[in-house]
Amino acid sequence: METLLLDTLTDGVAVLQLNRPDRLNAINEVMRDELVATLRALGGDQSVRAIVLTGSGRGFCSGIDVRDFGPGMLEATAPAIDRMRFQEAMAALPRAIRDAPQPVIAAVNGACVGAGLALCLASDIRICSDTAKFGNAAILLGLSGAEMGTSYHLPRIVGTSVAADWTLTGRTVLADEADRRGLVSQVVTADALLDRALELAGQVAGLAPLGVELTKRALQVNTDAPNLDAALELENRNQVLTHATDDAAARRAAWS
Amino acid sequence: METLLLDTLTDGVAVLQLNRPDRLNAINEVMRDELVATLRALGGDQSVRAIVLTGSGRGFCSGIDVRDFGPGMLEATAPAIDRMRFQEAMAALPRAIRDAPQPVIAAVNGACVGAGLALCLASDIRICSDTAKFGNAAILLGLSGAEMGTSYHLPRIVGTSVAADWTLTGRTVLADEADRRGLVSQVVTADALLDRALELAGQVAGLAPLGVELTKRALQVNTDAPNLDAALELENRNQVLTHATDDAAARRAAWS
Amino acid sequence: METLLLDTLTDGVAVLQLNRPDRLNAINEVMRDELVATLRALGGDQSVRAIVLTGSGRGFCSGIDVRDFGPGMLEATAPAIDRMRFQEAMAALPRAIRDAPQPVIAAVNGACVGAGLALCLASDIRICSDTAKFGNAAILLGLSGAEMGTSYHLPRIVGTSVAADWTLTGRTVLADEADRRGLVSQVVTADALLDRALELAGQVAGLAPLGVELTKRALQVNTDAPNLDAALELENRNQVLTHATDDAAARRAAWS
Repeated sequence: METLLLDTLTDGVAVLQLNRPDRLNAINEVMRDELVATLRALGGDQSVRAIVLTGSGRGFCSGIDVRDFGPGMLEATAPAIDRMRFQEAMAALPRAIRDAPQPVIAAVNGACVGAGLALCLASDIRICSDTAKFGNAAILLGLSGAEMGTSYHLPRIVGTSVAADWTLTGRTVLADEADRRGLVSQVVTADALLDRALELAGQVAGLAPLGVELTKRALQVNTDAPNLDAALELENRNQVLTHATDDAAARRAAWS
Repeated sequence: METLLLDTLTDGVAVLQLNRPDRLNAINEVMRDELVATLRALGGDQSVRAIVLTGSGRGFCSGIDVRDFGPGMLEATAPAIDRMRFQEAMAALPRAIRDAPQPVIAAVNGACVGAGLALCLASDIRICSDTAKFGNAAILLGLSGAEMGTSYHLPRIVGTSVAADWTLTGRTVLADEADRRGLVSQVVTADALLDRALELAGQVAGLAPLGVELTKRALQVNTDAPNLDAALELENRNQVLTHATDDAAARRAAWS
Repeated sequence: METLLLDTLTDGVAVLQLNRPDRLNAINEVMRDELVATLRALGGDQSVRAIVLTGSGRGFCSGIDVRDFGPGMLEATAPAIDRMRFQEAMAALPRAIRDAPQPVIAAVNGACVGAGLALCLASDIRICSDTAKFGNAAILLGLSGAEMGTSYHLPRIVGTSVAADWTLTGRTVLADEADRRGLVSQVVTADALLDRALELAGQVAGLAPLGVELTKRALQVNTDAPNLDAALELENRNQVLTHATDDAAARRAAWS
């Protein structure tokens, strides 16, 4: 691939690395399409049990590389239907991350901005280095600060007050504040980040794939559940399904 | 009762203690049924104004005691309809806690795991000792880590990111992290836990029962409300209802 | 106005100050109606780009000044329909704050109680001084602790567990706890509060008004969105709309 590095480890962990380091891994059209295609392919590969998403070089992802999307994308006079298609194609990125049955762990190694923030927020788990920076400058450019799912994910991750503060000001949030507000689960040194992500992904990869997938789905669906009763109905079926598997039987036998 | 201790204090506080300390208060069939029946009975007793839920001995609740649910529950070949009934019967536990009109305060005195975590999450308020540990090992056993309402409650309590980290890894969370992420309101020493819970419950028990019940219901219903307007309609009726009571009139008179 | 001070600054920031300092800015009938009318007028004034809401004197707002709402409002025997109208009129306050297209920044300079807390929660961003205190004593008076949108906003801002703890006990929450739980974005000294709020509002006021409005709306609507897909549909249209504006084109040109 032109813009991504993919490394599939023996323990079932796939490491997907945004690889345009000279542009702080900004997303151009090729990267967008390669990302969506790769995430779909990984999602369909049962030997892949967990996915680590990270950036090469100093940054995680600096957002959309507008210069690479053709002049039409920069003109205020671009036809509205073309801009709509552009937005929908970008929105395919968070969808692809969420659609993967395997957990996606974002290992944020530096600037995580705009569309990069959207990739990070759509992941299931987020850890970062102490050099990470989060933000979305879209609102500084006259656009809405809510895009690619950020206005769905951010209030559900850090609460509506912190989400509004960050989104309406377009300001940069450092690793410590990201941790304090629950955006990331933990902060480690830049040197330790990939190892920590691989360790976490390795733990998940060692679990029963169906159990893991149904857990990811339950969290997604029941975050949206209208009430506890609806959530219980889904959870109950997941447990009946997983309990009947040979995998679960073997793990129970090994445990006791 | 065989598995529970119930102590109803003069100030209207009921202390419900899981009492199988040699099993870290694991839930067997008898405890499950006694818990549901007792919570329903307390819910119907107007002299009970607040409920403290805690464990005897070193633990709060170590989850389901699978050995006590009959061999069928352990076999992968158990009929799906039997497993479904089992899940539904377990799901009656968080429902019973939420259905009680009185606030339930979980005083987590040690291991709070699996079904025990589900009891804790379904409670209205959570405090814990510095020896408390939270987690759900179900995903380590090939099952879904989401059960008995955990995938409904956890994202709403600590946000979706922390919830996914905890649930997908099945890891153990200590008291300090539980506090930092908002799972519990406060951490006290093991010696001080019950006194603190009784103090908190005593405060609630001293309030007007209808006001307290409608507050608990408003928080439950409006956490699920589709928008602010729907939430306001419920709140408005609650205030009109409570304002017209003799209890509220007496408290206003005493206040001013 | 009798109960409010309004100062519209040259940078597009409107400072709206509750001004009954001898009553800690308690809301009487006049203040309620002046607040709703003023927020509507500011909302319709395109020269206003951001609104700071604060209190004069030592407090932010000490709640409803029941003595000023006529004897009928204090009697348990007031007709239910009159009480319902009273509740609906009070509920117009959080609605007016949310309806304003401009972000509202609450600068909480002291006691922020009851209806005052509701004003604070309905604002988009909250900062406070180290002398701020938050709470709602309604439940201590036999009423529900959920009113004027608090049971909608609080669980979405600080999570359901902390929201229940605060609301069911009616206790006072100090600035440090408010910050730690994400109720406010930051705490500054009392002396620095207004300057900090003006700085924050000035940043927002310098942005493109349509981009800011659509960001505020996206956060509101997508906090209520049933799922990610619905959220993306709104976000996509917002970006197409804002991208086509002259304002955004000028900001893009200045940026690059």
